[in-house]
Amino acid sequence: MYNSLLQPDVRVMLEENDTQGLREFCRALHPAVVAEVLEGLPPEDVWRVLRHCDFERQAEIFGFFSLPVQENLVRSVDRQHLSDLIEAMAPDDRVDLLERLDPEVVEDLMPLIAQAERSDIRKLLSFPEDSAGSIMTTEYASLPENITVAEALDRLRQQAPDSETIYYVYILDEDRHLRGLVSLRELILARPQRQLSEIMHRDVISVRVDDDQEYVAQELARYDFLAIPVVDSQNRLVGIVTHDDVLDVVQEEATEDAHRAGGMEPLEDSYLETDLATIAWKRGIWLVILLGAASVTAAVVKSYESVAKKYVWLTFFMPLVLATGGNTGSQSAALVIRSLALGRLKEEDAWRVAARELKVGLLLGTGLMLLAFLTACLLVSPYNAMIVGLSVFVVVVLEAVNGSMLPLLIKRLGMDPAFMSNPMIASLSDLIGVVIYFTMVLLLLD
Amino acid sequence: MYNSLLQPDVRVMLEENDTQGLREFCRALHPAVVAEVLEGLPPEDVWRVLRHCDFERQAEIFGFFSLPVQENLVRSVDRQHLSDLIEAMAPDDRVDLLERLDPEVVEDLMPLIAQAERSDIRKLLSFPEDSAGSIMTTEYASLPENITVAEALDRLRQQAPDSETIYYVYILDEDRHLRGLVSLRELILARPQRQLSEIMHRDVISVRVDDDQEYVAQELARYDFLAIPVVDSQNRLVGIVTHDDVLDVVQEEATEDAHRAGGMEPLEDSYLETDLATIAWKRGIWLVILLGAASVTAAVVKSYESVAKKYVWLTFFMPLVLATGGNTGSQSAALVIRSLALGRLKEEDAWRVAARELKVGLLLGTGLMLLAFLTACLLVSPYNAMIVGLSVFVVVVLEAVNGSMLPLLIKRLGMDPAFMSNPMIASLSDLIGVVIYFTMVLLLLD
Repeated sequence: MYNSLLQPDVRVMLEENDTQGLREFCRALHPAVVAEVLEGLPPEDVWRVLRHCDFERQAEIFGFFSLPVQENLVRSVDRQHLSDLIEAMAPDDRVDLLERLDPEVVEDLMPLIAQAERSDIRKLLSFPEDSAGSIMTTEYASLPENITVAEALDRLRQQAPDSETIYYVYILDEDRHLRGLVSLRELILARPQRQLSEIMHRDVISVRVDDDQEYVAQELARYDFLAIPVVDSQNRLVGIVTHDDVLDVVQEEATEDAHRAGGMEPLEDSYLETDLATIAWKRGIWLVILLGAASVTAAVVKSYESVAKKYVWLTFFMPLVLATGGNTGSQSAALVIRSLALGRLKEEDAWRVAARELKVGLLLGTGLMLLAFLTACLLVSPYNAMIVGLSVFVVVVLEAVNGSMLPLLIKRLGMDPAFMSNPMIASLSDLIGVVIYFTMVLLLLD
Repeated sequence: MYNSLLQPDVRVMLEENDTQGLREFCRALHPAVVAEVLEGLPPEDVWRVLRHCDFERQAEIFGFFSLPVQENLVRSVDRQHLSDLIEAMAPDDRVDLLERLDPEVVEDLMPLIAQAERSDIRKLLSFPEDSAGSIMTTEYASLPENITVAEALDRLRQQAPDSETIYYVYILDEDRHLRGLVSLRELILARPQRQLSEIMHRDVISVRVDDDQEYVAQELARYDFLAIPVVDSQNRLVGIVTHDDVLDVVQEEATEDAHRAGGMEPLEDSYLETDLATIAWKRGIWLVILLGAASVTAAVVKSYESVAKKYVWLTFFMPLVLATGGNTGSQSAALVIRSLALGRLKEEDAWRVAARELKVGLLLGTGLMLLAFLTACLLVSPYNAMIVGLSVFVVVVLEAVNGSMLPLLIKRLGMDPAFMSNPMIASLSDLIGVVIYFTMVLLLLD
């Protein structure tokens, strides 16, 4: 939106070398808007614009570019400028960028970065991907408990420039153990002479540095927190994860699950920013696996060759029987996978889920059996139509249960339940479906 | 987690009528924890516990119950207690609850609710579901621009108890037009004598009261806001949407899309909280529609009866050809639907997407054609295997493009692109697939 409105103005300012105008552009607008407007320009021009403001502001704007764009911009700037920028960036943002860069480039950059930032970067880079440590920032506000509210407010003013948020203040002892939490709202409302130890909350809900980011997101969401503290094994505060980063995690995890549900490896960047070779690869590997499953199905059908030869009509309804089973399984899997992702279903609930799916399957199976029978009557004899109907009934009941149990089984095996994609469920259902269908024909006709 | 740890204690306190203990339990823990512990108790016991704290606290705890639990609790409490509780609840939370209750119950309750809250409720209830108005709260902090920072902090202290957040303060003129924004952080850091008009941001990013909640979520996420102001058509502030509500919206929309992708109408409550009849209905309607599509496919196959009779081997590979097409289409649809949901793909990009999918389709189609040919050679003659391979090639290319274009088409028609579920794409792909497969056989064998 802003892009199309403001980009022409920026181009004109660049052509006319309008220093005043460009400085104003960088400063006055929200950094996200500046980033959006600049995103379409050639990297050299982006840097020409950014150089009109200080590194703090440059870093703020830079943080709003998507990672592929950041990566691209990094290539066309000198190392000194880049290292100054990285020093000014938020700790979590800069680690996200450095993780994508060539390790050699990172090693070349490190000596140019100030000591304090350098060790912070090394620490954050050491946490495994998708852990609380990998998404947290180390710029939080903290205070000791034995000071007054008035003093706390004074100290907060000093910490503000280096804190991502000052709305939650963590109370630490000398060894940085997390003792309590007080919000800025509470500080503002408290009498200035009170001690922090009197007004702080002592039961602070925190996550561990090696907790999964999905769990961190669930915890923050559950308590409606602005930020959640991250502690090490000795309950020492090492960072915080803020609400905006959790929102990113939630979107990222939903994207991952949506891609998996569609039967592919998740893309890391947005669809239009990902090159075609990567897309083809992430889709291709799954299509090949699924083709393998389908080949087994083909061999199974071949083993029933004589039946297929004798009763050609059964070919008409093969797609119908298989699709109906696959569809039912996809629904069950979608329900279970999403409930697991939201933390609203535990592995202990497996039996309860199986019982529910069996009941739903019987209900749906009965209805669909009747409908399939009636439709099939239009094309074949009622007796043959009955075979179609009965096959539909059995696959629906079976797939309702299967589709719900497979993701739980996969989770039990320590893998992502979302691997049980709709195409995967459908393939397995095809395999079971042909066996049921042909068995039914053999039982009732031969 | 807390549930299993604390629930036995609460049961004992209830048995022993331990007023002191229950009061402490309600007060000391985070309201979300209290809600979690109470959720498994019978409604009467929940109320017996809640009565140990004031209505403010009761409302806080109550807001953390899931909506089905809230609904259930409402049934077992007298109207006077309920109306007092509703008065104390956050405006957005109580409207969510009232929307679920029987309209008659709501009309009976309304006279018991204080005038100010009552008109607030009526206003919020009037906004369409899924609009900014339906998720916003009316409890925001606002100030005029012609006061000093010191005065602003004083006034904020008074507003704090009735504001969901005081970290963003909206600057309004006498007619409540949104003039600016100042954060509490900026207020704390500014010199006390400065005027708000000097330090406030004037270009405030806001949403309209009738904007879709998904758009509201995208905007808040894009700017990393704590809250986003909601204005009417005259730019008058009517409410704010806070980060925690946006997180709920994002989760809700992702759940909706995941359920749709699995080929069913989305559940409103969590899977385990939804009764089986509702689940069967929301799945059944789509299974019936999909069965309808599959019946058409059956009729099409029947029209090729003579071919199927002549070449029985083609039955072996029918599931393989159809599944491969469906899988490719599912992937394309998943990519496009998710990008649309994140606002990273616009309808204008349709041609670009079609071109990308054509290229990816050609690449994947070639690879899968070769693999399908080689596999088919194990079961049938090389010439017949070639027909299978060519069919796979054509369906893959076609479905890569189809799967990406159908959601865009559905969006253009003003509907939710997520209607193009994986089962739906697979059904349409089955229909096209059988035509391609049989045509290929007719062309190359007859």
